[in-house]
Amino acid sequence: MADKAQLQEAIKTQGEVVRKLKSEKASKEQIDEEVAKLLQLKAQLGGDEGKHVFVLKTAKETLTGKYGEDSKLIYDLKDQGGELLSLRYDLTVPFARYLAMNKITNIKRYHIAKVYRRDNPAMTRGRYREFYQCDFDIAGQYDAMIPDAECLKIVYEILNELDLGDFHIKVNDRRILDGMFAVCGVPDEKFRTICSTVDKLDKMAWEDVKKEMVNEKGLSEDVADRIGEYVSMQGGQDLAERLLQDPKLSQNKQACAGLTDMKLLFSYLELFQVTDKVVFDLSLARGLDYYTGVIYEAILSQTIPAPAEQNGADEAGVSVGSVAGGGRYDGLVGMFDPKGRKVPCVGVSIGIERIFSIMEQKAETSSEKVRTTETQVLVASAQKNLLEERLKLTSELWNAGVKAEVLYKKNPKLLSQLQHCEETGIPLVAILGEQELKDGVVKLRNVASREEVDVPRADLVDEIKKRTL
Amino acid sequence: MADKAQLQEAIKTQGEVVRKLKSEKASKEQIDEEVAKLLQLKAQLGGDEGKHVFVLKTAKETLTGKYGEDSKLIYDLKDQGGELLSLRYDLTVPFARYLAMNKITNIKRYHIAKVYRRDNPAMTRGRYREFYQCDFDIAGQYDAMIPDAECLKIVYEILNELDLGDFHIKVNDRRILDGMFAVCGVPDEKFRTICSTVDKLDKMAWEDVKKEMVNEKGLSEDVADRIGEYVSMQGGQDLAERLLQDPKLSQNKQACAGLTDMKLLFSYLELFQVTDKVVFDLSLARGLDYYTGVIYEAILSQTIPAPAEQNGADEAGVSVGSVAGGGRYDGLVGMFDPKGRKVPCVGVSIGIERIFSIMEQKAETSSEKVRTTETQVLVASAQKNLLEERLKLTSELWNAGVKAEVLYKKNPKLLSQLQHCEETGIPLVAILGEQELKDGVVKLRNVASREEVDVPRADLVDEIKKRTL
Repeated sequence: MADKAQLQEAIKTQGEVVRKLKSEKASKEQIDEEVAKLLQLKAQLGGDEGKHVFVLKTAKETLTGKYGEDSKLIYDLKDQGGELLSLRYDLTVPFARYLAMNKITNIKRYHIAKVYRRDNPAMTRGRYREFYQCDFDIAGQYDAMIPDAECLKIVYEILNELDLGDFHIKVNDRRILDGMFAVCGVPDEKFRTICSTVDKLDKMAWEDVKKEMVNEKGLSEDVADRIGEYVSMQGGQDLAERLLQDPKLSQNKQACAGLTDMKLLFSYLELFQVTDKVVFDLSLARGLDYYTGVIYEAILSQTIPAPAEQNGADEAGVSVGSVAGGGRYDGLVGMFDPKGRKVPCVGVSIGIERIFSIMEQKAETSSEKVRTTETQVLVASAQKNLLEERLKLTSELWNAGVKAEVLYKKNPKLLSQLQHCEETGIPLVAILGEQELKDGVVKLRNVASREEVDVPRADLVDEIKKRTL
Repeated sequence: MADKAQLQEAIKTQGEVVRKLKSEKASKEQIDEEVAKLLQLKAQLGGDEGKHVFVLKTAKETLTGKYGEDSKLIYDLKDQGGELLSLRYDLTVPFARYLAMNKITNIKRYHIAKVYRRDNPAMTRGRYREFYQCDFDIAGQYDAMIPDAECLKIVYEILNELDLGDFHIKVNDRRILDGMFAVCGVPDEKFRTICSTVDKLDKMAWEDVKKEMVNEKGLSEDVADRIGEYVSMQGGQDLAERLLQDPKLSQNKQACAGLTDMKLLFSYLELFQVTDKVVFDLSLARGLDYYTGVIYEAILSQTIPAPAEQNGADEAGVSVGSVAGGGRYDGLVGMFDPKGRKVPCVGVSIGIERIFSIMEQKAETSSEKVRTTETQVLVASAQKNLLEERLKLTSELWNAGVKAEVLYKKNPKLLSQLQHCEETGIPLVAILGEQELKDGVVKLRNVASREEVDVPRADLVDEIKKRTL
């Protein structure tokens, strides 16, 4: 919150803005908006904010200074009171704020929710302005690299199980980057901006990155070349060991801390059996300012073939690139705590929308049938006037915990009931007819094999559960 | 979008605002903000907005005219372009818009997401300005009352299984209400506003509702009294039958259609075995304009005792009231379709946040322990220097699909590992020691019973799965 003198100054300025607009007969809307701001400022000065605030506002201030050069992608909105509000840019900053506000010092959780980016959308690559992210974070004061290794294991597991083709996970450490910049002769105040430039190495050739460093960011050629040598290095635990012997890097305290942790991280990753996909890559930078230690990014190796109808000359395949990323951010929670109490955190954001778009394209290309329902059984009838019996049986199955469905028609044709199962992937049909009702049985049909068997009504639930385990 | 002359005027005014702020040496932030607005306005003038718009904007217009008198609760925002935007008020209108835009004519789905109300929050009752709703809807042209009955069955199931105490579900039909107003002598143009007044009968006495009808809404006493007779009626299928014989209502086509459907609905509810909680109640009105047929609302009967520390004289218990509601809205999708094509829909919104607040209070009152994790087993050790063995075993369990956890400490004490299980409700501990490693076993401990047994490492996964079925 601004101090009193600043507020009074702001109220004065704002009052003049309003008077000026009025004298110029500006639009009512514009005047209203500026008046609202004025009232807001006055309320801040006079009121006891804490009293009546139930809605916790994520004001723009919460987001600024956290994303470095990516800040321009934050979606701003204005609320009715004229306060500056933004849509959340990621789930990490809100998570950190949540921990600080609720004084939580230990938590492990995942969170799937929408985030917003004022970016150029690219639908085929699964890049939207509003999209879902899935975050997993571990917060708490723990021994080095154990939670960090778990985050990488999780990314590995997800990408492996989703069967999205070959992938690799690049790992680096903000401290190694900073140490590297220092020993290469980058001035302190240029670390962050040079970091952003290095981050472009996945999309740009080294020559172009170097040009940006020299021409736009004002590094000397020498310094850029020294950086160039380091950022071309890739390896595993061996590289960390080798760099700990590097005459320049080994003189830098930060770099040494980062490299020692990197060695430890790889030893844990070895135990987790994921080192085949993890690469220690000195060119990985990631643009966000809040990282303080390990950083990582998962990249799919393959391009996904575009579906036939969109397959133009230029778009033969879709390269999706990064599908997950994250790192350690030990300072972020403290930024939201009035007393600056730190809660070390490490986490990962999974771009589920991108992953979905790949899975969808894969399904389209392979003409694989995707099951769209969890329904185990459709309650059907071959004869007319059996709606009530169908509803009764459906209710019985529901009550027994079976996922059952019934067509919402009085007298549907058997064929259309079977077609519904084939279209949606329902594996079983429970067929009722006069004869079955008389005999106390239900005809259970396997949709795929078309095989039918009469099951005593009392055994139906068990039989369905057995067949749909 | 504003027209060109308006924009040019706004740019001029904004330019002056910026110049003024600069001359007054206002804060950089404030100037930047006003400059940004100026650039935005200029961009609007020059750019071709349509070209790069991929994000479908839910403009305020989408929401207006759908909520009747509740419209004042819509949370308005302003986006950067100065367009009027709002936060979504419920999930029904966005669902209808989604169907129309994607030309979907058949779907059954649930959706859990946040909605926003500019209302007075009441935390203890689970009423917030931003809160989650859970909607279930069935869209499609089907035979009468079958999907409607399924919605009621679902509400019944949810409230029953969550064990929230006694409840009842009021049911009515918009057509019965309209027919009733017509035969009572309410002028057509007052149907909606009188409907809103009737809707208050759950919070106000009839005398006060009548007063509002007469004094504020301008009905004659006679008309109000006639309404009063009807809205005091409650029953089941029998009441629907009786009203079909009512000399006045039976002359009204709409009322008859509604009553016939109500009879049918109850016959299906009978098959679903839920009639013990469902009441046909002519006083149920629900405020929203979009309903066209059946409407319903689920109400918890009991008040929940407030937790001891908050238990003041005035707040002896918390009455939560309505926890779910919905109905049929056959016209809403058509309002979003350029050709007005209708898709009949019926659905229900479950106030999960309210339900959670009741469950939390119940748990607090009963001092019941709520399990906060799904973890099946904690991998632990009693001796030092076994971190690597713990990580290895954890990874083995993860790879086998077991939900396992490990403390992120090099050498945690056995006691703190056991305490962690007790606090979070992890039922099993897999304990490793030098001896166990040598013998190729793991000591599996039941946290509750403290019983321990040595399990051969090869059998561990099966044993854990068997014990945590």
